[in-house]
Amino acid sequence: MSFAKYDRYVERHANAFAERLQALCRMPSVAARGTGMRAVAERVEQLMQRVGAGTRTFKIGAGFPVVFGEFGAGSHCFVVYGHYDVQPVGQLSEWTSGPFAAETRDGKLYARGASNSKGDLVARLAAVEAYQKSFGKLPICLRFVVEGEDGLGSPSLYRFVEENAEMLRADGCVWDDGDKDTKERLVISLGFKGITFLELRAYGARTDLHSKWGGIVPNPAWRLVQALATVASPKGVITIDGFSSHVAPVSDEDAKALKSIELDEAGLRREFKIGGWVRGLTGRHLTKELIFAPTCTICGINTGHTEAGAKTILPGMARARLDFRLVPDLTPALVVKLLREHLDARGFQDIEIVEIASAPFAKAAQSSLVARAAVGAAAEVYGAEPVIYPIDPASGPVGAVCGVQQPPTPVVSFGISYAGSNPHGPDENIRLADFVQGVKYFGRVIHSLAQIARDDRREAKTQETVVQIGK
Amino acid sequence: MSFAKYDRYVERHANAFAERLQALCRMPSVAARGTGMRAVAERVEQLMQRVGAGTRTFKIGAGFPVVFGEFGAGSHCFVVYGHYDVQPVGQLSEWTSGPFAAETRDGKLYARGASNSKGDLVARLAAVEAYQKSFGKLPICLRFVVEGEDGLGSPSLYRFVEENAEMLRADGCVWDDGDKDTKERLVISLGFKGITFLELRAYGARTDLHSKWGGIVPNPAWRLVQALATVASPKGVITIDGFSSHVAPVSDEDAKALKSIELDEAGLRREFKIGGWVRGLTGRHLTKELIFAPTCTICGINTGHTEAGAKTILPGMARARLDFRLVPDLTPALVVKLLREHLDARGFQDIEIVEIASAPFAKAAQSSLVARAAVGAAAEVYGAEPVIYPIDPASGPVGAVCGVQQPPTPVVSFGISYAGSNPHGPDENIRLADFVQGVKYFGRVIHSLAQIARDDRREAKTQETVVQIGK
Repeated sequence: MSFAKYDRYVERHANAFAERLQALCRMPSVAARGTGMRAVAERVEQLMQRVGAGTRTFKIGAGFPVVFGEFGAGSHCFVVYGHYDVQPVGQLSEWTSGPFAAETRDGKLYARGASNSKGDLVARLAAVEAYQKSFGKLPICLRFVVEGEDGLGSPSLYRFVEENAEMLRADGCVWDDGDKDTKERLVISLGFKGITFLELRAYGARTDLHSKWGGIVPNPAWRLVQALATVASPKGVITIDGFSSHVAPVSDEDAKALKSIELDEAGLRREFKIGGWVRGLTGRHLTKELIFAPTCTICGINTGHTEAGAKTILPGMARARLDFRLVPDLTPALVVKLLREHLDARGFQDIEIVEIASAPFAKAAQSSLVARAAVGAAAEVYGAEPVIYPIDPASGPVGAVCGVQQPPTPVVSFGISYAGSNPHGPDENIRLADFVQGVKYFGRVIHSLAQIARDDRREAKTQETVVQIGK
Repeated sequence: MSFAKYDRYVERHANAFAERLQALCRMPSVAARGTGMRAVAERVEQLMQRVGAGTRTFKIGAGFPVVFGEFGAGSHCFVVYGHYDVQPVGQLSEWTSGPFAAETRDGKLYARGASNSKGDLVARLAAVEAYQKSFGKLPICLRFVVEGEDGLGSPSLYRFVEENAEMLRADGCVWDDGDKDTKERLVISLGFKGITFLELRAYGARTDLHSKWGGIVPNPAWRLVQALATVASPKGVITIDGFSSHVAPVSDEDAKALKSIELDEAGLRREFKIGGWVRGLTGRHLTKELIFAPTCTICGINTGHTEAGAKTILPGMARARLDFRLVPDLTPALVVKLLREHLDARGFQDIEIVEIASAPFAKAAQSSLVARAAVGAAAEVYGAEPVIYPIDPASGPVGAVCGVQQPPTPVVSFGISYAGSNPHGPDENIRLADFVQGVKYFGRVIHSLAQIARDDRREAKTQETVVQIGK
C-alpha cells in the first residue's frame, strides 16, 4: 500500500498537529502538584473524540482519571499506552523559557511533557486521523489507555488494570517510551524490566535524641547501614541469598540483538560526568549488564538531620528506598521473599520491608506480531533499520498492563524523542521534524499490524487446511 | 559565713527575678531563624550592666554577638558561660501555650529557652546581684561570656575564643549545662566529652539519574553505605583501625564517682520508647559506656529521594553526618586522621571527609578548685550531696573555651533545670522553685570559689615558708 496520500495529509497538517501539541503542553499537569489534572484529562478525551473514538473516563478513587478511547474494529486488538501527566518542573531558573510556555525555537518545541509524553500521544492520535482520512476506518481495534499518574507510580492505572482486565486483553501493546539514540537511530524496545520498589525501615527511640546518647541507645541509621551493606557487595554485585539463581539465561535471539545496540559510552560518560562504569565494565559486557542484568539501586536514604548547622542528633528512624529492576524469572514477590529471608538470616528481623510499588517484566519475542509490525515499518520512514532493545532497562506499569493475560501480552515501545530531549530535566524538548516523522511512522505501524494479522490468519488457515488434507 | 541575709534578699526578689526571666523569654532568639538576636544580645548586656558589670559586645563577622561582662576582682578569675539564643520551636501545635508566651502554670515557667539556658543566665546574674547587696563587691573576678550561636555550633564563640584567649585565662570555668536527675538530685559535671562532627560525601553522576542506569552507573549511596559499614560493627562497636588504642583508661577517682550515678534505666527506656540498650548493656556497664566511652553516631544520611511517590532515581551524591564524642586522649584531629587512614586502607579513597565542627574534651579533677567549690556548696541548698558526673556525655564549645590554656582550664557545669524540662522539645519549662534554689546555690558557689582560692593561697604560702625554713 502506498502511503503517499497519507504522508501528504500529515505534511499539510503538520503545523496544526504541532499547535495541538503546543496547546496541550500549555496546560500544566504535574501529577505531584495535582492542579490542572482534570482539565487535561478532559482535553485528552476531546482530542480522542475529535478523531472519532468511543471514549470513557475512568475515575478511580481519589486518583487522576484514566482516559480510554477505542478506534476501529477488526479481528485483532492492540493497546496503546500514554500518560497526560508530566514530571515536576524542577528549578525554574534552569529553563530557557517557561516549562508551560511551550515555545518553539530552532524547530524544537520546549515544554515540560513535550517529550514525556504528550508529544507521543498527540502524534499517535494524529496518525489515526491521517489514516482515517487517507484509507478510511482502521482495520484493527486500537485501544488508547491514557493515565495521569505516571509521575506517581501509576496507582490508578494499576487499579484500572485489575478492574478492567477484559478491556486490556489484546494481541499486543504499544508503549510510548523511546527515542532516537545518540546516532539518530530509532530505538524499539521489545520489553521492559520488572520493578519492585521497596522501603526498608529501621526504628530506634520514639523521636530523634541528643546524640550524647549515641553510645547506648540503638541507632536505626547504623542498623539500616549494616543491613544494606549485606545486600550488595562493595563492587555492586547483588548478594541476596539465592537471588542470582533466579535469573533466566539470555536467549540466543536476544543475545544476538545486543550486537546492534551501540551504547555511546563516551557520550554518556560525559553527560553523566562519571569517570567509568561499575566494575570497570565496557563494550559488550557493559551493554549486556545494562539490558539483561537485574539491578538493586538505593534510590534514597533519609534519616536524622543533614541540613545546614551542626545538629548532632541520634535519629529515631531511618528509611531507605530500594529499587530492583527485574528480568525473567525474577518476580516482585520472589524478590521481597528472598530479601526478607536474607535479612532474617543475618539477624535483621527488625528491619521492616514495605512494598511501595511493583510491576512484573513485560516482553515481546522478535517473532511476535507487534515486534514484526513495529520493526518492519520503521525503515521506510527512518531510512535505516531501527535498533532493537530486547529489554528496555526501564520499567513501569507496562508489566501490569501486559500481565492481565497469560502468556503476557507482547509489548513494543518507541517514541518521538531524541537523545537531547531531557525528559525529566530543564528545557525538555522535542524536534518538530521527529514529531512529524513519528506521525508518519505510527500510521505505518497501524497498517503493518493489520497486514501481519491478516497474513498470520491466512497462514493459520492454510496450515489448518494442510492438516485436514493430511488426515 | 551566714547566707541568711543573702537568702532573704533572694526570696524577697524571687518574683522580680522570675519576671526578669519571663521578659527575656518573651524575646524570641532562635539562632537558626536569626530574628530578634541583636535585641536579645542588647538586653543581656543591659541585664549585666544593671548588676554593675563592665561589659563589652563582641561582633564577630556576620555572626551573632558575644556579650562579655566582668564582675568583681581578686587574685582568682572564673569564666561563666551562657548563651542567649534558643532552639527552634518545632511543631507549634505540640505546645500547650506559645513558646514565647512564657506562661507560668503550676509553679512552672513554660518557654523556649527557659531551661536552655536563659534561666541559668538570669539566675546567675541574680546571684551576683544578691551577693553584692548582701556582702558587697565580689571577692573574685567573674567573667560572663554569653554567646548567641549555641544552636548553630557556636562558630562566633570559637572565633571569639581564638581572638581573645587572654580574657579567658582563668582558674576555672562554670558551664550552664545540667539539671536535677530523675531522683531530684543536683547533677554536677566535671567535664564534657570532646566532639568532632564530620560529613562523609560520596559522588556519582553529576545529577540524579533515572534508576534504569542502576546496573552500570556507580551509585554514591551504595558507596557510602559500604564505607560506613566498616566504621562500626553491627553490634555498635567502633571498628576504625587504631581507634580504641587511643582511649585513655578511666582514673580510679572517676571510676569511683560512677557509683553515685544512678541512671533511671526504666524511666529512660520508657521516655525513649526503646526495648533495651545497645549490646544489652545494663547497670554499671551501661553507665560506664555512657560516661566514659567514645561514640560514633550517624546523625543523618541524605541521598536521593525518599518523599511521597515512587521516584526511582540513582542519586548523584550521598552524604552522611557522623558525630564522634571524644574522651581523653582522643582529639578531633586524631579521629579525622584515623578515619581517613581506615577508609583509604579499604579502598574508599573516594569518600570525602569534611570536618564541620570540633571541640576537644574538657575536664576538671575532683581536687580542682572549681570542683571542690561547686560540690561543697551544694548540700546546704539542695539538702543532699550532688551527683558527680566525671564526664558529661554531651560536649560543645566548652572544650575550646577551656583549651585556651595548657593544661586546660578545669570546668564544672550545673543548671537550674529538672528531668522534665524538655529543653529541645515542646513545652520546655523550668520549675520556679528550682530557679530560686539555683540563685541561692550560685551565691554560695561564688563564696566557695573565693574561700577555697584564699585557703589554697594560704596553704601555698605556708608550704613556701616551710620550704624556706627547711633550707
